[in-house]
Amino acid sequence: MNLTQRRPQSGFGFLLTGFVVVLAVRFCSVANAADPLASWNEGPSKKAILEFVAAVTDQNSKDYVEPSDRIATFDNDGTLWVEYPIYTQFLFAFDRVKTLAPQHPEWKTRQPFKGALEDDMKAVGASGMKGLMEIVMATHSGTTAAEFEQEVSNWLATTRQSKFDRLYTELVYQPQLELLAYLRANGFKTFIVSGGGIAFMRPISEKTYGIPPEQVVGSSVVAEFQMKDGKPALVRMPKINFINDKAGKPVGIYQHIGRRPILAFGNSDSDMQMIEYTMAGEGRRLGLFVHHTDADREYAYDRKSHVGTLDKALDQADANGWVIVDMKKDWKSVFARR
Amino acid sequence: MNLTQRRPQSGFGFLLTGFVVVLAVRFCSVANAADPLASWNEGPSKKAILEFVAAVTDQNSKDYVEPSDRIATFDNDGTLWVEYPIYTQFLFAFDRVKTLAPQHPEWKTRQPFKGALEDDMKAVGASGMKGLMEIVMATHSGTTAAEFEQEVSNWLATTRQSKFDRLYTELVYQPQLELLAYLRANGFKTFIVSGGGIAFMRPISEKTYGIPPEQVVGSSVVAEFQMKDGKPALVRMPKINFINDKAGKPVGIYQHIGRRPILAFGNSDSDMQMIEYTMAGEGRRLGLFVHHTDADREYAYDRKSHVGTLDKALDQADANGWVIVDMKKDWKSVFARR
Repeated sequence: MNLTQRRPQSGFGFLLTGFVVVLAVRFCSVANAADPLASWNEGPSKKAILEFVAAVTDQNSKDYVEPSDRIATFDNDGTLWVEYPIYTQFLFAFDRVKTLAPQHPEWKTRQPFKGALEDDMKAVGASGMKGLMEIVMATHSGTTAAEFEQEVSNWLATTRQSKFDRLYTELVYQPQLELLAYLRANGFKTFIVSGGGIAFMRPISEKTYGIPPEQVVGSSVVAEFQMKDGKPALVRMPKINFINDKAGKPVGIYQHIGRRPILAFGNSDSDMQMIEYTMAGEGRRLGLFVHHTDADREYAYDRKSHVGTLDKALDQADANGWVIVDMKKDWKSVFARR
Repeated sequence: MNLTQRRPQSGFGFLLTGFVVVLAVRFCSVANAADPLASWNEGPSKKAILEFVAAVTDQNSKDYVEPSDRIATFDNDGTLWVEYPIYTQFLFAFDRVKTLAPQHPEWKTRQPFKGALEDDMKAVGASGMKGLMEIVMATHSGTTAAEFEQEVSNWLATTRQSKFDRLYTELVYQPQLELLAYLRANGFKTFIVSGGGIAFMRPISEKTYGIPPEQVVGSSVVAEFQMKDGKPALVRMPKINFINDKAGKPVGIYQHIGRRPILAFGNSDSDMQMIEYTMAGEGRRLGLFVHHTDADREYAYDRKSHVGTLDKALDQADANGWVIVDMKKDWKSVFARR
């Protein structure tokens, strides 16, 4: 801008400029004041969240928490995305059994691999947790870290969920995406703390949830640093490193994050310890569970479910001050908008 | 402000306001353009850093890296703070042996505890790595996570290093603080990746280095979720969980960060695997070692040192394109300004 050629603005012009600025600021405030949790219906759950965030971010509140301590942890399966009727990662494992079968002719006759190859979920189920772990170990190891990441990315980019015929990354809950964004806008650092495999979530966590890989805590296999084809590589071994579930969740939080969350969100009894640990800290805390009550828009299951059992936590919620989020009542929409 | 009572500003006043704004902007630009690595002398090390950061942050460069992939990892002992003549954490452990001695009368006659109680470092040293681990296990477990954090914080807030008579948190390297800040200003996420205990660094990492606890990767003991005095707590167990050293460093990076760094900085042969792993990724990479060459301002040691041995890495640096930072030549000042 050449100032010498610019016509000096009149006093009225200056006032007008000021008015426009005030108007712009006012307009932006209104825009920011738009409901950040638009997919949450008014009710006790939404109220509890809004009041909690207001309290811990208000410097004049007795409940104020420094931004660096605003740690929020979310379970993944059933809390951020669909887990019913079967955990996504197990489906990935069964598909990988099929992919790897030519290298393992013995699987044709050996359970639980035979069951996985024949889509015989009863046979797989009959092998129990031991059988499932055998499948997970066989399908989640033997590759480099980079190769496994690519396998997961490819699978999640192409495999559709049976009931909804959508990619799993499209079956994430819109109200939770809004909550994650709302927390981050209020200075929170958001983490996934899941019983699922850390390497299964990381390839999609940033794009899907805005949560970078280093803020994902999960179960893992042992990895080894080796030379492979003359290049240093991390090789995934057929051995459990850590199970980040139940009482493992607070441990995973300690080892990985090193700070106690002030908000934790789960959906099953497996999340109780994470939420107990969160609530036991000093100052104001918030613990929440998704209750899957919506057979029409998603699924309805709780006390006697084969995945995501919500039973003890339902009984203890009131006494412990935990918020039970009723999917049917509390969520205006369920899945992420496409 | 009551606009009706305000005298409309003259045209000249408006121009003047504009001039002041332009001046202020210009001044700020100059301030930002001040040398971000002021404590680094001009030379090949500083040049390598500046050129690397310029290349990976320039969207028109073939070496451009998205901000989310700008991961930088730093060893701690000898790379960010003093490690000579003995790792700080071992001194903490020896002091804790003295604190805990009344509960362990047998230590008076049993090595390596006897040696630690009598400041007989020869006796402690004679017990080898096995003895040192025995001391670390006895002094780093048996408390809750919160209690241990408090112990570490108290010790680091009061204990002075022998040669410099300063707190250990004051014996951090000024050029490295500038480098950490410079990297962050250029969109990098900075991590500590140390052989030291994760719980020993976290209490001071944010205040000292601007690195939050969740961006610290280190060695750890097993932790258990238990009820203690009727409250859920994490209890530190006398059992190694993970040794984040040598070939453990790339593994720690994988499990904790989940992305390969593009810049890694160490100071000893124990950092070679971290730097090899970093350099083996695609695209432009930078690997650096601090070479302790300054007996006057700090210490001079390398090939045959009892801590922070820099030997193989010195021999392989040229062939591998690693940058050897010569403390005496490359650093204008050594310690953080008080």
